[in-house]
Amino acid sequence: APQRPLSELRPDVEIVDAAKIPYGRAMAQEAINEVLVDRARQGKFVVRLKGGDSFLYGRGYEEAVACAEAGIPCTVVPGVTSAFSVPALAGIPVTHRGMNHEVTVVSGHVPPGHPDSLVDWDALARLRGTIVVLMGVRNTPAIAEALVAAGRSGETPAAVIVDGSLDGQTSHRCTLATLAGTLEAHDVRPPAIVVIGEVAGLPDALTHD
Amino acid sequence: APQRPLSELRPDVEIVDAAKIPYGRAMAQEAINEVLVDRARQGKFVVRLKGGDSFLYGRGYEEAVACAEAGIPCTVVPGVTSAFSVPALAGIPVTHRGMNHEVTVVSGHVPPGHPDSLVDWDALARLRGTIVVLMGVRNTPAIAEALVAAGRSGETPAAVIVDGSLDGQTSHRCTLATLAGTLEAHDVRPPAIVVIGEVAGLPDALTHD
Repeated sequence: APQRPLSELRPDVEIVDAAKIPYGRAMAQEAINEVLVDRARQGKFVVRLKGGDSFLYGRGYEEAVACAEAGIPCTVVPGVTSAFSVPALAGIPVTHRGMNHEVTVVSGHVPPGHPDSLVDWDALARLRGTIVVLMGVRNTPAIAEALVAAGRSGETPAAVIVDGSLDGQTSHRCTLATLAGTLEAHDVRPPAIVVIGEVAGLPDALTHD
Repeated sequence: APQRPLSELRPDVEIVDAAKIPYGRAMAQEAINEVLVDRARQGKFVVRLKGGDSFLYGRGYEEAVACAEAGIPCTVVPGVTSAFSVPALAGIPVTHRGMNHEVTVVSGHVPPGHPDSLVDWDALARLRGTIVVLMGVRNTPAIAEALVAAGRSGETPAAVIVDGSLDGQTSHRCTLATLAGTLEAHDVRPPAIVVIGEVAGLPDALTHD
């Protein structure tokens, strides 16, 4: 039986646990879509609660489409994306005046050179701004190698932020050249976010408890 | 005298209006920093309330540095960036499974080719993912032209979202080739966000009042 972590809910509110755990158990996306449509057709008011930004690698759009196809009206309440909020919590602005004017958020779940890759890592390496890699712990060594091979300096500052926003949040500053070794030295496991770019070399001005 | 739009505040809370209006009045950044430090030194608990994400073109980092240099402890509460939330509210996911794995947020306040430009628009054009242009209404024609000149197809879907998240939010779907004409036809003025990429061609599955 699902836990009831949302203690402010009325007792008659049904909770459906649709969590996806990295490399662990997961409720299939199709099953999630079906639950949304099924409960709405029962006349219920359905809240699909997701962590982070449901429209950035979040499949919120796919769920909205499933509802629209079933004739179910749907609105979205935007969330706070980990791509920018976790660097901020580690004291890293993804843009900084006079330093860069753009930031690219990229999924690292498919390594560079893989047939399924949709990312032009050569073009990404040529950009001078910030790169934020999500879901990339496993492939970060290959990503760093590809960026350096495409001309990005190995001296480019980088940072790894582990367990961002959680009590145990830690961050490690390094460079693009030492990124893979940093992950290994600290035995970094998901969830972790990698920031690559000059902003990762800025001093941390925040107070951390 | 500043208005008191935050009606839940206690009457003894001082409100300092530090708004910046595009092409309008603005409180200088240095003056904002000074107020933060000054009030903190008076022993006050200071909340610097900003719209959107204060660490993405938000100068929140600069304010944190000013506090740190004055020995004032500072924490950050991440906000919701317009770069992803406004497309979401217009029914556009900035990433979509099988379509793209990266999104670049770029400031359009400096046009391509300008000596102060920090963006490699050629490299950006080569990326296959989504481009979100903030603060770019004035320079969007030049940006679209630069992207097409660098090889991005003029048939690439695009969208302009005006007054995002406000009651009067409107959006116009078009292509990279028709982007400039779309802005002109609808007399688009800031605030507006431009989305370029295949995701802008996805059907809108949301319910808009």
